[in-house]
Amino acid sequence: MSTSLPVIPTDVDGVRRALAVAATARVRAHPNPWVGAVLMTTDGQVFTGATGEPGGLHAEAAAVAAAREAGTDVAGATVFVTLEPCVRFEGKRTPSCAETLRDAGVRRVVVAMLDPDERVSGHGVALLREAGVEVVTDVLRTEAEALLRPYVHHRRTGRPWVLLKMGATLDGRTAAPDGTSQWITGPEARADAHQLRAESDAILVGAGTVRLDDPALDVRHVDGPHPRRIVLGHAPEGAKVHPCTEMSGPLTDVLDTLGAEGVVQLLVEGGAAVAGDFHRQGLVDQYVLYLAPALFGGSDARGLFTGEGAPTMAELWRGEMVDHRRVGADLRVDLLAARTQEEIR
Amino acid sequence: MSTSLPVIPTDVDGVRRALAVAATARVRAHPNPWVGAVLMTTDGQVFTGATGEPGGLHAEAAAVAAAREAGTDVAGATVFVTLEPCVRFEGKRTPSCAETLRDAGVRRVVVAMLDPDERVSGHGVALLREAGVEVVTDVLRTEAEALLRPYVHHRRTGRPWVLLKMGATLDGRTAAPDGTSQWITGPEARADAHQLRAESDAILVGAGTVRLDDPALDVRHVDGPHPRRIVLGHAPEGAKVHPCTEMSGPLTDVLDTLGAEGVVQLLVEGGAAVAGDFHRQGLVDQYVLYLAPALFGGSDARGLFTGEGAPTMAELWRGEMVDHRRVGADLRVDLLAARTQEEIR
Repeated sequence: MSTSLPVIPTDVDGVRRALAVAATARVRAHPNPWVGAVLMTTDGQVFTGATGEPGGLHAEAAAVAAAREAGTDVAGATVFVTLEPCVRFEGKRTPSCAETLRDAGVRRVVVAMLDPDERVSGHGVALLREAGVEVVTDVLRTEAEALLRPYVHHRRTGRPWVLLKMGATLDGRTAAPDGTSQWITGPEARADAHQLRAESDAILVGAGTVRLDDPALDVRHVDGPHPRRIVLGHAPEGAKVHPCTEMSGPLTDVLDTLGAEGVVQLLVEGGAAVAGDFHRQGLVDQYVLYLAPALFGGSDARGLFTGEGAPTMAELWRGEMVDHRRVGADLRVDLLAARTQEEIR
Repeated sequence: MSTSLPVIPTDVDGVRRALAVAATARVRAHPNPWVGAVLMTTDGQVFTGATGEPGGLHAEAAAVAAAREAGTDVAGATVFVTLEPCVRFEGKRTPSCAETLRDAGVRRVVVAMLDPDERVSGHGVALLREAGVEVVTDVLRTEAEALLRPYVHHRRTGRPWVLLKMGATLDGRTAAPDGTSQWITGPEARADAHQLRAESDAILVGAGTVRLDDPALDVRHVDGPHPRRIVLGHAPEGAKVHPCTEMSGPLTDVLDTLGAEGVVQLLVEGGAAVAGDFHRQGLVDQYVLYLAPALFGGSDARGLFTGEGAPTMAELWRGEMVDHRRVGADLRVDLLAARTQEEIR
């Protein structure tokens, strides 16, 4: 697609546009990193590319292909890209993005962040520089890392980014004393939660939730792939969650296994016991709370977590609120664990 | 103060400016209504006035006084005002605002809303019209009523506007299992809560809170008058809350009494039993929750309300979220009861 940039764009202009393109790729690209590329030819034409579905074109190749489809010569072009162009590893046969850019005769590549994957990290930049391509790095790196948090976390730790999603009233209750909870939050919040599913590689629930709610854990209301379904414990025959993977044992082992299987983002959807276990073991990277403008108004409705929480103020868990916004009549609040922030910095 | 307005302001322009002036008057003016007036002379000079402290000038009189201090002739002026100008009642001897505007020779008065106080309602407008002043009403009335909600509620129901303020973690907990809670929210949220105190005519807590926390319930961190202190039950000798008013009996009687005594806004500060009682009896008009980006992470920390809440989803209380915003590291969420909204409409 040919579109416009400022007549003489700065590197920041170009990368900012590439970040916007990358954001559109997330649902389609994962578990591959969702990347955006902006290619500007010597005569000022601009083409963009975003990571396709797994097995499809990466962002840089897509931008080059878009230019060629338009019959445009890309020799001498500048490319702005949100993540370091990849190199071949593990016997891959098709050209890597770094090779594609080199072979296309690109003159200059502006990279927001190096790839945290050690098989690529630094190698993509080195390949280009060895071929005489000018490479600039770390332009809007913080923004790029924020966009790719789950991917960065997975590559650095070997474990999935754990996103704990919860819906509650403003007095922190998830269900009436009789266990019913349909619906505390409104349709817009539920659609937003399905977007989280579509962005995740796997969803995890406890066997208790399967027995109680019999959730299908599929993606509705939004477009996107269905994630893998993981049940902690045994899912009864006939449950809607099938086909699913039943897992047990320490949660750290569960995360190591899923990470090794390529799960970049794991969405934990409950129930309160599973949420408490993940939280208290410090395994949650991001909390997404949908808070309805509603109150149960007593101490007998069900809480977000079961089990023993922080016993004193000194042990209170504190995170960082990175977003809060209305979703329909409800409020969505995003918290990050402090250690997650440090890991990324 | 002489300031500018669009060269030919519309009535909406003028009232909008008057609303901004009114908002600055709240802490000073209550329990009188916090009103703003904008006076525009025939030669386009603009003067503003806001309600002063109880016993001081009302907004309209302040605007006229400001013009006269500047040696400006106000004959023929247009005045934009957020609330209907008052008339004399109950043997008041000083001139009312309607009389002041009439006697000043003002030509036109634009009123956002009629006064809900039946001793004034319609009489101010009638007095002006009888004197040949052109009067327009209901300009930005919804905005004016929203600004004056507590006053409108008090005059229509005879009871104070009840604002229930609570601080909690995002999992809806107000204290650790050992009862300690200092500090869940940050200094900015605590200062904001002191602003609520400064805007209130009285603060109410339960005797349990007095025994447990020994709060002073005074205004710190912000400028403003100290509200009356009300304790439900008995405040032990030596408690910092003294001097206070001890009250008991049905909450509806408490509110009737306080309303009759001129309490326009009552701030309820807890604890969880008092909050539950007010909430479940439907006596809370506005909920202000300060939510810290923190989680206790279990079911054993203390909740916002004690007692039996809504037993089923069908009985879940639902309000309207009218505001949400960051206050320091915390989130402030304002809910209004639906009936309150109806009462004002």
